[in-house]
Amino acid sequence: MSEYVSMDNVKFTLFDVMDAESLVQYERYQDHDKESFEILLDSIKDYSDKSLFPYFKEMDEDPCRYEDGKIYTHPAVGEMMRVAGENGHIGATFDYEIGGIQLPHLIHHTLAHITQSANNSLPGYTGLTGGAANLIITFGSQELKDKYVPNMLAGKWGGTMCLTEPQAGSSLSDIVTSASPNNDGSYSIKGQKIFISGGDHEHCDNFIHLLLARIDGAPAGTKGISLFVVPKNRIKEDGSLESNDVITAGDFQKMGQRGYCTTHLAFGEKDDCKAWLVGTENKGLKYMFQMMNGARIDVGGIATSIATAAYHASLQYAKERPQGRRITSGGQKNVNEAQTTIINHPDVRRMLFLQKAVTEGSLALVMLTSKYHDLSKVAETEEEREKYHDLLEILTPITKTYPSEMGQTSISNGLQILGGYGFCTDFPLEQYYRDIRITSLYEGTTGIQSLDLLGRKVVMKNGQAMKLLTKEVIETIKAASNYDALQPYANQLKDASKELEGTLMHLLQYAMKGQNERYIADATIFMEYMSNVVMAWQWLNMATVAKTALLTDQLNYDQSFYVSKIDTMKYFFKYELSKNKGLQDILMNPESITIVEDNAVLV
Amino acid sequence: MSEYVSMDNVKFTLFDVMDAESLVQYERYQDHDKESFEILLDSIKDYSDKSLFPYFKEMDEDPCRYEDGKIYTHPAVGEMMRVAGENGHIGATFDYEIGGIQLPHLIHHTLAHITQSANNSLPGYTGLTGGAANLIITFGSQELKDKYVPNMLAGKWGGTMCLTEPQAGSSLSDIVTSASPNNDGSYSIKGQKIFISGGDHEHCDNFIHLLLARIDGAPAGTKGISLFVVPKNRIKEDGSLESNDVITAGDFQKMGQRGYCTTHLAFGEKDDCKAWLVGTENKGLKYMFQMMNGARIDVGGIATSIATAAYHASLQYAKERPQGRRITSGGQKNVNEAQTTIINHPDVRRMLFLQKAVTEGSLALVMLTSKYHDLSKVAETEEEREKYHDLLEILTPITKTYPSEMGQTSISNGLQILGGYGFCTDFPLEQYYRDIRITSLYEGTTGIQSLDLLGRKVVMKNGQAMKLLTKEVIETIKAASNYDALQPYANQLKDASKELEGTLMHLLQYAMKGQNERYIADATIFMEYMSNVVMAWQWLNMATVAKTALLTDQLNYDQSFYVSKIDTMKYFFKYELSKNKGLQDILMNPESITIVEDNAVLV
Repeated sequence: MSEYVSMDNVKFTLFDVMDAESLVQYERYQDHDKESFEILLDSIKDYSDKSLFPYFKEMDEDPCRYEDGKIYTHPAVGEMMRVAGENGHIGATFDYEIGGIQLPHLIHHTLAHITQSANNSLPGYTGLTGGAANLIITFGSQELKDKYVPNMLAGKWGGTMCLTEPQAGSSLSDIVTSASPNNDGSYSIKGQKIFISGGDHEHCDNFIHLLLARIDGAPAGTKGISLFVVPKNRIKEDGSLESNDVITAGDFQKMGQRGYCTTHLAFGEKDDCKAWLVGTENKGLKYMFQMMNGARIDVGGIATSIATAAYHASLQYAKERPQGRRITSGGQKNVNEAQTTIINHPDVRRMLFLQKAVTEGSLALVMLTSKYHDLSKVAETEEEREKYHDLLEILTPITKTYPSEMGQTSISNGLQILGGYGFCTDFPLEQYYRDIRITSLYEGTTGIQSLDLLGRKVVMKNGQAMKLLTKEVIETIKAASNYDALQPYANQLKDASKELEGTLMHLLQYAMKGQNERYIADATIFMEYMSNVVMAWQWLNMATVAKTALLTDQLNYDQSFYVSKIDTMKYFFKYELSKNKGLQDILMNPESITIVEDNAVLV
Repeated sequence: MSEYVSMDNVKFTLFDVMDAESLVQYERYQDHDKESFEILLDSIKDYSDKSLFPYFKEMDEDPCRYEDGKIYTHPAVGEMMRVAGENGHIGATFDYEIGGIQLPHLIHHTLAHITQSANNSLPGYTGLTGGAANLIITFGSQELKDKYVPNMLAGKWGGTMCLTEPQAGSSLSDIVTSASPNNDGSYSIKGQKIFISGGDHEHCDNFIHLLLARIDGAPAGTKGISLFVVPKNRIKEDGSLESNDVITAGDFQKMGQRGYCTTHLAFGEKDDCKAWLVGTENKGLKYMFQMMNGARIDVGGIATSIATAAYHASLQYAKERPQGRRITSGGQKNVNEAQTTIINHPDVRRMLFLQKAVTEGSLALVMLTSKYHDLSKVAETEEEREKYHDLLEILTPITKTYPSEMGQTSISNGLQILGGYGFCTDFPLEQYYRDIRITSLYEGTTGIQSLDLLGRKVVMKNGQAMKLLTKEVIETIKAASNYDALQPYANQLKDASKELEGTLMHLLQYAMKGQNERYIADATIFMEYMSNVVMAWQWLNMATVAKTALLTDQLNYDQSFYVSKIDTMKYFFKYELSKNKGLQDILMNPESITIVEDNAVLV
């Protein structure tokens, strides 16, 4: 079997860089230890080898389909729901008392990285089910919990998040799905939801939709949105199921992730769709954002995983494929020599380093954000918890976006390494290329994430999150500066971080003058710019850990593994961080073109 | 019908920017005039509307397939071959005496832009047939011409170029297909060729393969490669056809351009495949490069066309789709207002300008290179012809690569504008995204083109081509400097052009020290860097033409058309040319990572 993930890299990043073991000092995680984490990782890898990776191509070739009001998916979907339910994967991060094992999110995301690298069409089914269950657990009544959560965690019932409507898209202010109160405390729902991942299939008896709707008379905009539990089938007194008037109207046919269904659901066409309010009226969006924020980190993780699998596929190809010869110092090629393997060509090496830099850097970022998530819950003091919460907040849009955007670039380079074969279905690169394209759209497009970053996160609490982040970056710079060999890179990151601050100050002038649209006009450019600093930070940190291991001779993996980390850091600083020069120029450029009042014409 | 190309833009670029009419002063083109060109353009648009665009999606959904040794394609393939043959499109640029109409390549590529924007799976079939015929005409004997060319130009027989072999890929030095001389002056061919576009289908009676092979005892490497005509079916004395032992072994299944077959051919498996030498022994690669150079410009044109169609699709969507509201100066959105169309959001405007800048700039570059091709043949003096030949040589790799690489980025941004819908098969963006991905692989990957640019073209004749190019750029800078409003951009281009020179000088030091691999190690980065200067030149030139038209009130199109050209130039300088800052940093960076002797480790 070809490799799709490096377990050495997973363990190095998790244990050596993120110090996952440090989490078990907290009461919530005290029953775990490094050994139990490792057993989990290895067993998930084994499971992924046997039960996920083998269906990766098959699920693409035989995609989900919609027939006679029903959606049919690959049998592996049912099998995975069953196994995940039996093994307690779906609610692994939940409290013991509701069937969880209080696994840190850090570990949970690492496990998901392995499964998603093996087959990115499958883990979404269980991931969303867990997210939906968690929403009920956190904000729902005891009755809702008792009624729905056990079967969801058992993998018998699927869970979804229903936000998007045809006429509203990303603009949640404009959703029109209505909820009319009934005498029995339930609500009657009427409306259409689209792009509902895992919204229906033949392998679950029931689907529990967490749905945003507007209660009759609610205020306009997002302030009038409430969250409901809407089961596909209602549970009767005797425990049997009856239809709840949720119609599956179609399955969107997509360019990639074709094994992961994307449904169109119609609620209450026969005026018989009942729903139950979660929490308080008109607080729905706030609740949903708990799930949404988690889902955004998930998407960054999915993108990282797809790009990781692609990296290993192209690395293997480059090591095995003979083609051409190196250019010798005389400038002539000796055609009587045997061909070299293409990994020896500088342009191929550059592309492989790009893939490695993007994917391993992204994995570190996903893990770090997940660790902040954990610490925001378990850290000792309120102050610490707030600190980690703020760090989680500011990193979430970057963790969603950088792996998605640069993962695409990374896979495109991987495909390029295979030449014409990369474009053909005989090799997996073209599927990875198609699959990952969804990640910069899912759960808020790159544009939306960038507005969130620049418009909300960097300015929240008077720039508090930004300050905390800068502090963390400075810690890493200090640690790296202990090594002469890393000093130049530490200096570069220091400069880049200062430039980021300066550029942000420049942009804030627009906001201070009330030119808010101008302030956020190039938010997507700012996202790329700031992401490069964040990633340079990740790489400098990883290189410092690797350097320390090499110098102290405390090696858990081959020496070449550590050397490669430092080389990839160098790659990142030379080829990726350098982009910030141009990006800064754009952000500092006084010329405005993209605001309507600039009167620039598009024909 | 939705629009896929702007005829205003085609005509503006062709007549106002490229001054196509100036070509008819040359004897070769004297029977043409602007009016006849316009009639051709309009009739090809009409034909594309009716006979090409309607099959764009259909050919993707029902791709070419291989069954029982045969390849089946969409009926539109046969119809297009027939119409192109009847109307003289296949050999339109050829001499009158062999059935051509001596159409300038500039016009021919413009017509191809229209057909390829309508349906990029179709025009390759006739394009390669014309290229193959031209190779026979230029280098083949009278007998070969008489025997094969008429049926090719009539669209009855298809033509191909057969270079790639499974074990050699891009390394033509390593092709092993053998040619053994027979007593009758023919050769017997034995070997496998892969990735042969249009290599077989049911709509032509015969296929004429222009094939590279090695005559028994020929020198190793590219010096021992000869060019042959290998018909699928031999022509018997009575004019009927008999099998020539060319077996169709398969059709590669691809991510995109699924209506354009990509065949695997086996020659001489029964030792009965006859071939006829074109020109002289061992000169095959030189001959093939005539076709190859043409094909590289074609690929740039195809990429431009696919990205153009995508631009119009996303522009139309952005104009029609209501979603969200603009951010007002107070920073609050008024949710009681109606939603705005998304073209009013700055991030969407930015993406549309990116698409417009890439596609219209690419079209100008393809046209300019084609015009240089024409002038290299027809200019008055030998000196002038050499000048245009050198310009053609240096621009060819850029014309192939920039539209291919940035066309992908452009379409990805277009897809992004549609949000989740962009990923779904209900809209054409996902198909454009898949289709264009082949263009940076076809006819020499981006890596190969970049080696050609930096390793050969910029240094050829002691840098002569580079000097000529710089001179042309300076002419444009001078013309733009006549307008105060364009002066800042003229200055920016002047700086960028000087920086390009300086960076090149820096790199050349490696070559002068004999460090040839180091010199070309970042050729792909250099390609991007130099391309941005070339594109800024195109945009400054277009903006100058537009400015002149506006100031002299000589408007052939809406005033907004001209204003938009100038705005898009501004976009290019702010958002694209700025990238050169970072790219230059990479090229000037002394740290080397991607050469084997750097000992950087990839695991």
